[in-house]
Amino acid sequence: MEAVPKRPLDRHVHGSQHTQTTFQAHPRVAEGAGMTTAGKAPGLAQANLIAIPKDWAYDFLLFTHRNPKPCPVLDVLDAGETVSALKPDADVRTHAPRYRIWEHGELVAEPENATEHWRDDLVTFLIGCSFTFETALTNAGVPLRHVEQGRNVAMFVTDIQCRPAGRLHGPMVVSMRWVPESLVDIAHKVTALMPSVHGAPVGAGDPKMLGIDDVHAPDFGDAVEPEPGDVPMFWACGVTPQAVLMKSKPPFAITHAPGQMFVTDMPDFAYRVG
Amino acid sequence: MEAVPKRPLDRHVHGSQHTQTTFQAHPRVAEGAGMTTAGKAPGLAQANLIAIPKDWAYDFLLFTHRNPKPCPVLDVLDAGETVSALKPDADVRTHAPRYRIWEHGELVAEPENATEHWRDDLVTFLIGCSFTFETALTNAGVPLRHVEQGRNVAMFVTDIQCRPAGRLHGPMVVSMRWVPESLVDIAHKVTALMPSVHGAPVGAGDPKMLGIDDVHAPDFGDAVEPEPGDVPMFWACGVTPQAVLMKSKPPFAITHAPGQMFVTDMPDFAYRVG
Repeated sequence: MEAVPKRPLDRHVHGSQHTQTTFQAHPRVAEGAGMTTAGKAPGLAQANLIAIPKDWAYDFLLFTHRNPKPCPVLDVLDAGETVSALKPDADVRTHAPRYRIWEHGELVAEPENATEHWRDDLVTFLIGCSFTFETALTNAGVPLRHVEQGRNVAMFVTDIQCRPAGRLHGPMVVSMRWVPESLVDIAHKVTALMPSVHGAPVGAGDPKMLGIDDVHAPDFGDAVEPEPGDVPMFWACGVTPQAVLMKSKPPFAITHAPGQMFVTDMPDFAYRVG
Repeated sequence: MEAVPKRPLDRHVHGSQHTQTTFQAHPRVAEGAGMTTAGKAPGLAQANLIAIPKDWAYDFLLFTHRNPKPCPVLDVLDAGETVSALKPDADVRTHAPRYRIWEHGELVAEPENATEHWRDDLVTFLIGCSFTFETALTNAGVPLRHVEQGRNVAMFVTDIQCRPAGRLHGPMVVSMRWVPESLVDIAHKVTALMPSVHGAPVGAGDPKMLGIDDVHAPDFGDAVEPEPGDVPMFWACGVTPQAVLMKSKPPFAITHAPGQMFVTDMPDFAYRVG
């Protein structure tokens, strides 16, 4: 498996090159392929993580309500709390494989352990992740090309602007999966039943309708190769808060690294309706 | 149609009689039967409403996240805002048929127009209402006894405690519908697909499992008569915030009156998944 060339993270986001530079300072992550929890915890719900100062927590919680497709909230901890009811034996500062530390919208570090960056005024949010519906897709006969190829899912910043909330604004991020054309309908149906982990896709077919120029050059995660007859399907993605951090520049935040999720103890079935 | 005798609103809530007294001061509402938007706006989503001072908004928003069954949020306005995107031509202070004004957990007035009680620090929340799935139930062949009888739905305070958030805590309220036993499964299936308007029922059959002593003596709304072979089904209810107000006693709040909802312009189908 070869490393996938990275494009600037901020291609659509703030148009400068510094994030690229920051990334080159973290070669292990910049290596790209394979650094993911996708396919590693079948049957369990996985979560995006963002911890933000209490002073920004209302704006963020409001943002999630106004943008439920990319930001379905699974849990909110009290300020300073480090254990979620969704994974009682784990510390939210260490359980994800890798974290990102943000200052004023800039990515400043990507540690495996976020404890030394912790502050007691941080409010941690766990947000649904589309990896949670991948077991259901598999059970329905939908192949997962990124898992087959041992890669992270491909994620893209779209030209869809989220609905702002207080000081927070920014574009929606989506994950992309190659799906055989004959299975697009079933993939839609299976995921629509799991709205807490992003639900139905926001688009399928033409990446340009989401403002995505090149489906082989993701903004986050890995490029994934299609099989003949595959079409791209796009789901709202819990990396959206990271695009919002870049745009809105709160003074401090901690997130997981894209694709390197907080794996919960919750069965994926708990997030299925009907 | 005869008026339904009221039991103290606070039967399970704070154990005193004053709410009963307050109710007697509002005879038009105390008349009970028929004062409802149930069945009056088929195909449109209806919403519960609560406006609470900005200082309490984070606690409330967190409460809704921690209790998504009774409190699925459809919209959150900014402080002082009086128009929701879900009903752009209406004022949230006048569009519901009747409001409740709360001070320190006490019901102090029930006006048809809440404008004179408005404060610019109020943050308005619109919360999903189970009336929204009633058209889907009808379409699936499930009769609605309360609509047939021209009554409000029956609502009960349960012994299920919600998950607290900040200063807010209190019991879950449920709505009850009589459903022919042969249609219980389809009623479950239809409503499970609409999680934003309370989703699947929280119980069916024995009211005692929810701490409800007498299914003919609701805490809010009207008593509804079953037909032979009907069993009671219970759904989490957006009147829960009112039970929480009684218990948690924030200094001020405005809500709709139970069953007299804020009718939106949104098609009910918008809140259906799958």
